[in-house]
Amino acid sequence: MPDSTTDTAQDTPDTAPDFAGSGGGETIAPRPYILGDAPGPLSRDELVALDAWWRAANYLSVGQIYLMANPLLGEPLLPEHIKPRLLGHFGTVPGLNLVWTHANRAIRARDLNAVYVAGPGHGGPGPNACAWLEGTYSELYSHIPRDAEGMRTLFHQFSFPGGVPSHCAPETPGSFHEGGELGYSLLHAFGAALDHPDLTVFCVVGDGEAETGPLAGSWHAAKFLEPARDGAVLPVLALNQYKIANPTLFARIPDEELLTLLRGYGYEPFLVAGDDPATVHQEMAATLDTCLDRIAAIQRAARAEHRAERPVWPMIVLRTPKGWTCPPVVDGEPVEGTFRAHQVPLPAARTDPAHLATLEAWLKSYQPGELFTDDGAPAPELLELVPAGDRRMSANPIANGGLLVRELRLPEWQNYGVPVTAHGATRHEATRVLGAWLRDVTAANPDDFLVLAPDELVSNRLQDVLEVTGRNWQLEIGPFDVDLDRSGRVIEVLSEHMCQGLLEGYLLTGRHGVFTCYEAFIHIVDAMFNQHAKWLDAASAVPWRRPIASLNYLLSSHVWRQDHNGFTHQDPGFLDVVLNKSPEIVRVYLPPDANTLLSVYDHCLRSRHYANVVVAGKQPGADWLPIPEAAAHCARGLGIWEWAGNNDDPSTTPDVVLACAGDVPTLETLAAAAILRDRLPALRIRVVNVVDLMRLLPDSEHPHGLPDPDFDTLFTRDRPVVFAFHGYPWLVHRLTYRRTNHAGLHVRGYKEKGTTTTPFDMVMLNDLDRYHLVIDVIDRVPGLREQAAGLRQEMQDARWTARRYTREHGEDIPEVANWVWPEAAIPRPGR
Amino acid sequence: MPDSTTDTAQDTPDTAPDFAGSGGGETIAPRPYILGDAPGPLSRDELVALDAWWRAANYLSVGQIYLMANPLLGEPLLPEHIKPRLLGHFGTVPGLNLVWTHANRAIRARDLNAVYVAGPGHGGPGPNACAWLEGTYSELYSHIPRDAEGMRTLFHQFSFPGGVPSHCAPETPGSFHEGGELGYSLLHAFGAALDHPDLTVFCVVGDGEAETGPLAGSWHAAKFLEPARDGAVLPVLALNQYKIANPTLFARIPDEELLTLLRGYGYEPFLVAGDDPATVHQEMAATLDTCLDRIAAIQRAARAEHRAERPVWPMIVLRTPKGWTCPPVVDGEPVEGTFRAHQVPLPAARTDPAHLATLEAWLKSYQPGELFTDDGAPAPELLELVPAGDRRMSANPIANGGLLVRELRLPEWQNYGVPVTAHGATRHEATRVLGAWLRDVTAANPDDFLVLAPDELVSNRLQDVLEVTGRNWQLEIGPFDVDLDRSGRVIEVLSEHMCQGLLEGYLLTGRHGVFTCYEAFIHIVDAMFNQHAKWLDAASAVPWRRPIASLNYLLSSHVWRQDHNGFTHQDPGFLDVVLNKSPEIVRVYLPPDANTLLSVYDHCLRSRHYANVVVAGKQPGADWLPIPEAAAHCARGLGIWEWAGNNDDPSTTPDVVLACAGDVPTLETLAAAAILRDRLPALRIRVVNVVDLMRLLPDSEHPHGLPDPDFDTLFTRDRPVVFAFHGYPWLVHRLTYRRTNHAGLHVRGYKEKGTTTTPFDMVMLNDLDRYHLVIDVIDRVPGLREQAAGLRQEMQDARWTARRYTREHGEDIPEVANWVWPEAAIPRPGR
Repeated sequence: MPDSTTDTAQDTPDTAPDFAGSGGGETIAPRPYILGDAPGPLSRDELVALDAWWRAANYLSVGQIYLMANPLLGEPLLPEHIKPRLLGHFGTVPGLNLVWTHANRAIRARDLNAVYVAGPGHGGPGPNACAWLEGTYSELYSHIPRDAEGMRTLFHQFSFPGGVPSHCAPETPGSFHEGGELGYSLLHAFGAALDHPDLTVFCVVGDGEAETGPLAGSWHAAKFLEPARDGAVLPVLALNQYKIANPTLFARIPDEELLTLLRGYGYEPFLVAGDDPATVHQEMAATLDTCLDRIAAIQRAARAEHRAERPVWPMIVLRTPKGWTCPPVVDGEPVEGTFRAHQVPLPAARTDPAHLATLEAWLKSYQPGELFTDDGAPAPELLELVPAGDRRMSANPIANGGLLVRELRLPEWQNYGVPVTAHGATRHEATRVLGAWLRDVTAANPDDFLVLAPDELVSNRLQDVLEVTGRNWQLEIGPFDVDLDRSGRVIEVLSEHMCQGLLEGYLLTGRHGVFTCYEAFIHIVDAMFNQHAKWLDAASAVPWRRPIASLNYLLSSHVWRQDHNGFTHQDPGFLDVVLNKSPEIVRVYLPPDANTLLSVYDHCLRSRHYANVVVAGKQPGADWLPIPEAAAHCARGLGIWEWAGNNDDPSTTPDVVLACAGDVPTLETLAAAAILRDRLPALRIRVVNVVDLMRLLPDSEHPHGLPDPDFDTLFTRDRPVVFAFHGYPWLVHRLTYRRTNHAGLHVRGYKEKGTTTTPFDMVMLNDLDRYHLVIDVIDRVPGLREQAAGLRQEMQDARWTARRYTREHGEDIPEVANWVWPEAAIPRPGR
Repeated sequence: MPDSTTDTAQDTPDTAPDFAGSGGGETIAPRPYILGDAPGPLSRDELVALDAWWRAANYLSVGQIYLMANPLLGEPLLPEHIKPRLLGHFGTVPGLNLVWTHANRAIRARDLNAVYVAGPGHGGPGPNACAWLEGTYSELYSHIPRDAEGMRTLFHQFSFPGGVPSHCAPETPGSFHEGGELGYSLLHAFGAALDHPDLTVFCVVGDGEAETGPLAGSWHAAKFLEPARDGAVLPVLALNQYKIANPTLFARIPDEELLTLLRGYGYEPFLVAGDDPATVHQEMAATLDTCLDRIAAIQRAARAEHRAERPVWPMIVLRTPKGWTCPPVVDGEPVEGTFRAHQVPLPAARTDPAHLATLEAWLKSYQPGELFTDDGAPAPELLELVPAGDRRMSANPIANGGLLVRELRLPEWQNYGVPVTAHGATRHEATRVLGAWLRDVTAANPDDFLVLAPDELVSNRLQDVLEVTGRNWQLEIGPFDVDLDRSGRVIEVLSEHMCQGLLEGYLLTGRHGVFTCYEAFIHIVDAMFNQHAKWLDAASAVPWRRPIASLNYLLSSHVWRQDHNGFTHQDPGFLDVVLNKSPEIVRVYLPPDANTLLSVYDHCLRSRHYANVVVAGKQPGADWLPIPEAAAHCARGLGIWEWAGNNDDPSTTPDVVLACAGDVPTLETLAAAAILRDRLPALRIRVVNVVDLMRLLPDSEHPHGLPDPDFDTLFTRDRPVVFAFHGYPWLVHRLTYRRTNHAGLHVRGYKEKGTTTTPFDMVMLNDLDRYHLVIDVIDRVPGLREQAAGLRQEMQDARWTARRYTREHGEDIPEVANWVWPEAAIPRPGR
């Protein structure tokens, strides 16, 4: 093959054929492929071989976009061979294939353990093509063998009903990064490299993607890479200069300005630029060698020589034409090297004979006859370029993290629980109690468990974790800095995007972690969450993908305790975002106290393939349940707190149900129950606490859903239910609207009413306070409004008294601030 | 005053008093204030005067955090003078005050028209203090005069129930940037500068904030500033080195690396560093002069000399200690210049006598006796430093954009509507039709209207706008770039954050705009939307704030037409996020066709102080309503389409209501109605289309809410309602759960089920297709299941036929793809 390439190139005419397009202007096919010579580390044989792989991958990419038959062009190309809807994207593909091609050379030469992240949007055809060439596609999808029929199927399924999407996705062998929403490639790459000391991540970043905020911030992720313990990321900024319809910012500033920016981010950037394949191959090979040598030297210095200075990691800027090798002109408009190459360079290939002829010439310009055998398999020369077994990036098990994920060593959470001799008699900071357990989880799993926080670890009261580790810090350490550590297991950076993205990358490649964040600001990563949830959902349907560890959130500094920060910090709406995603994937927990938080979190860290959202308080709060009760309550997910109500006999229907979910709503509900039991002892009250929010859904809608008869038993079929809820109230309605007693359900929750205030004033503002809950009960239980008019007025007065006290003293009225569940003091009803 | 400062300083002892703290270690008060000398542009008098302002602002800031009485320390400081809950933040304040102090000098010297953006979190005390010194606070809040009682009130209200929050907020004079969530300061600053040619925005960026993705990307916003037409932003990176509990990344890389990064971002950075006030004052004054000279030269070159090269804008890196001037040591721990100064340096001032004594010494170290008259007014020397009238940054009307906002000149939308001779007989791309109108809106409002898009303007079919303007582009223009223009009125950058942030800044300072985005990816700015909605809500309650122009979204490339891109691009959940915000602020519209889109958008651009979310299709879709009908329908917000149903007599209750919201659901509903009318002519069908989603809410919940009796009339009290909805189905339930007929409501919408498919297959996957809607009707109208069993089976078969066709041909079955509303062909019922 090597020699013939040159021969063939010399045989073909030097000018491209022109076609008269229907659009009026001419359409020019790419020049048949001529591989020149250029100086560099590649021998002619190597150069020719690498180029052949690249051509093959490009051919297979064009085929995926256009063809549903005639994959090898065994017969003249006809309209019926072309898909009726052309939905792929070619622009970024040649760059992706070039990087893959050269990465494979390095993998073979250096026996690298490498994975590949395709950041640019819609680059799917490239990695699909390379995975097929490497054989992985056929191993994972037996109906797509490495032959002509397999090639046809590979083409046909691409962006076709029931097939694979136009970007990298869970279906893509070797991918652990979805190519839909842009901005997260580097974060996933760095997340993968953490704690994988021998891993090299080739991460292609699109220059469009590079304009996004998350990507702009994530260059700094290299500052968290510990060269002795972590692997390496080699970013390749694919500067093909165009987005959908515009040039990119980075393409229209001088090269030196761009390189200065990247140096400022802490990298040593190398520029590879050109549009002559031979020259670019040689430069890319040389540059890749240099970069990988640099990485090896950094790692050697850190590992063998124990040198601790912060490395300057290499990276590559690859400036090549958008749609490189596609038709240079279509309908009189320049295409190759312009934004018009972004998607489908020949949009009318099925209907316009000129486009069709150009497509055929374009495909033939890659000289498929040299690249594939007659029966459609890759030529033997190509197969020699494939790394062995798992060294193939398309087959690396790290990209299928579920294959590698281990069970965490979890200390018995019960040993960390707080003793509760009487319900509510003591107080603890729930997240602080959890912190002690997380500390020991961190210590027990030193290689595959991370805690991430946007500078909120201590604020969220998880500081005990810092007793066994520090915060990952590779930069200078100042005289007053504390708890910074080159090998720290906590990553703190004031970027929710970076926390989320690094953790996603870490989980997707087989490890575990927790992301703790202020509740309101987790909305910053709504979109990232959505994409990860979609990945989990879609991956579940891919047979060869294994479940990965769950994405565990611990949201604290929550909506009800933002007296500190006010309105901007009040937003419990992440739950609404989460619940829009597939019920197979999402779980939401609102543990009311320390012991239930421990129990819930133990469950979360054992789970797989979910997004677990746990909202918990960091302020001192009542300890409601002893450890065994907490375990039982969390196992049920919701249940009656018999001790809190007075309706001992479960066969008796209560007069009213007081339901609650969340720590503050639970406190107020219990306080309301105490008032009601004290003042209206004949009223039969049931208190139901909800930990697992998904229990409210019907079992037809969610695996955790409570069957209707059980729901009816708990919440009654017809009695008033006053539900004090942590979040926006309509979320409870959304979950319960199909339930028998939905009409009886009255929900109190947060509405947008924040102001600078105290904790109790905050709940009063939202009518979620104990006094108003009592009023709600009085207003809803038949006959009570008349019977308990005096109590109702007392409750109104108590609210105004509390508010006036707050306004005057700046803190809550002592009878509220110091209130304790009066367990022994409340009469049980005499029935 | 000038001389006495030096005298006093020399009189005070050089060593700070020590106090034995309860925490065991010693607590050291700041050294009494000694202003040294340093070389620089400031005369001694100027230096002393500026420093006095700075000290006064710092004194007033500490006072806000701690004191609720004894503001001038007229008597010894006692525990009862201290707030019971200390909730402010001091760390960032001295830096903010320093910038304000020096900005004022420049404003007076150069007669600058300037505003101030405080990026660092929780810096509220600083701008409050400066506004009070400038008199603005007292002008806007008559109960807070510039005297001792006013000072006491200023202190008392800060972070106190019913008072003002701890960060800049709508209540803060001169602020148009909320200080809650971090990351958007630069974007707001640049948004303000656009189209304000004589404006200078001093934008302080926290080094914590600088770690966020949005901020990291937004340095590039300078690349969209046209120096002839736009004002200037002077970023000041406040490098106080610490966040809540950690050093910042930027503080722990070498200065030269940081400056390289900022140069790479395109700036000329100047470093001002130190902890000696005199030196820093001199350096800051000199540097500010240099920067403002640079800006003036850039603007002169662009305006007077018409030079078109891209400017290198100056900026400042200000490296000063966190909590500068606060106690250096508290309880044995270093505080000034460390992360411990972030919040309240003396947390036990009310309970610990050592803390209390240190606080008193700290306050006195600013020498308040020199700064304020005996009755608490700022000393006359300070008043001389206040810029005149509106030149005060605290009083600049640009920061209260509602004062300046003009009505847009809007061409009659009816002139852009498509002719509709028969309902549904023709097709148009709705957003393309809107684009022609937006083109003329753009042309008619060349100074105060912008269109922003993340590289999606053309993709969303608004390219007609480019007929009258280009895309704003200040960089090099390549040979194949099109529609780039130095003075373009369209801003395209592949960053939803930048689009949102620039538009927010533009609106907040009195102008108008539209942000068009793919529906799924608008989630990227969920958090920004939340913060802006909260600003609008809180601003409504501030009497001196005027309503600003609405934030107008145009979301296209929506969930139902993502055959192109698949699962990752399917997410209609932004509506759920939006509806959690205050009903006074949010509006959601789902126009079903081109004419309704025009009508809705005309309404949006006339509205004030809302967030208007409009979701519309870009693919060819049926034109349902002629212009007058579209106007009437949009004015009602929802209504019966009599022509589509067969229940002509509105006094007759139909057998079933087919409701729909959104373009694709409307199409499928109409197609279902056609089938039902054709095949079950005796069935009385009502078709209700919903444009304004808020109409579904009760009028008690939203100003647009439909009163219950009207809702009952439209949707009946007891007949089945099959509702085809654009978004997640439970959103409709959430809006309607209080309605009489809620139990009869059956909603079809999007559930997470995406795959690579065709448009009709997509709606089939979600059971929202015409055939399934017919089945829904058959299953829900009493008796119909038996009576129409044959039709039901036909519908099932039709679905399988359509699906098989899709899988085989890659496009939709022609009978669906080419379906047209058969208006004339359908029998009206003979009743």
